[in-house]
Amino acid sequence: MRVFGIDCGTEFTGYGVVEMDARARNSRLVHCAAGTIRLNKKEATPTRLVKIFGELTAQITLHEPDVVAIEEVFFSANAKSALKLGQVRGVAMLAAATCGKPVVEYAPLSIKSAVVGYGLAAKEQVQFMVMRLLALETAPDSADAADALAIAICHLHTAQTLDLQAGAGGRR
Amino acid sequence: MRVFGIDCGTEFTGYGVVEMDARARNSRLVHCAAGTIRLNKKEATPTRLVKIFGELTAQITLHEPDVVAIEEVFFSANAKSALKLGQVRGVAMLAAATCGKPVVEYAPLSIKSAVVGYGLAAKEQVQFMVMRLLALETAPDSADAADALAIAICHLHTAQTLDLQAGAGGRR
Repeated sequence: MRVFGIDCGTEFTGYGVVEMDARARNSRLVHCAAGTIRLNKKEATPTRLVKIFGELTAQITLHEPDVVAIEEVFFSANAKSALKLGQVRGVAMLAAATCGKPVVEYAPLSIKSAVVGYGLAAKEQVQFMVMRLLALETAPDSADAADALAIAICHLHTAQTLDLQAGAGGRR
Repeated sequence: MRVFGIDCGTEFTGYGVVEMDARARNSRLVHCAAGTIRLNKKEATPTRLVKIFGELTAQITLHEPDVVAIEEVFFSANAKSALKLGQVRGVAMLAAATCGKPVVEYAPLSIKSAVVGYGLAAKEQVQFMVMRLLALETAPDSADAADALAIAICHLHTAQTLDLQAGAGGRR
């Protein structure tokens, strides 16, 4: 199973592709790709949305994931920033759906729990564990790309747990 | 000049197309089309976003407007609803930009001022004036479609005023 994780942001949107090799012992996680879409704040919003949509569509098409995983957002910041983040998030979900991929969402707490084992882990701990779990020698090109990889790992761990719970472990 | 107005909503998204016939005396406003995209709340968000994107792209392509006008949103409601509205808005702006149309935004106060002459006008007053200005015999199929027509009228009035201010009135 291959997962395409997306960490949406109004300036930087990270993506990360992780695969689980179910045939390997201990279901090894394999890092396939990661990157950051950087937006120019001086550009108009529609232009920025076209860039995010185009780059995500290209990357999803290239990596052919089974599923796209996005972080659920709950935050108490002002409604204005929520609206702006929503614009990016809507376009990201559209890119996934247009490519015919199912979209799953995970709360930040679940992502941290799945990667670090502790829901309130710091950002640095998440990045450290992402590098360790994927056996990366260098850090991803941005914190957002690392977060996107964490989201993908979260889905793989969750899917594996559900699989084991269903008594289907190892059959895939 | 033909304007495609969009009133974004998480359940109903209205659109309305209005043209200004600059050759006519008093620059007559002409109603071209209006409609409502109704979303099924039971469907997943990506599916709903695909529907909005598809329908808006089809309507913009069909009506070939010179510009797409969207309402600016400022609201004090919770961040969660702002995020959801942002998702729809992002997809609407992407549809316009993908069709190669410039996107303009107007604050609710400007829209009401342009249509009713009073920034704090009630929703019913806006609908009444939209019907009157466009000489419609029946009301648009939803309040959202009426609002979308109001946004289009606002841009036409604003563009005309700027034109007159620039001393170019009547030359177009």
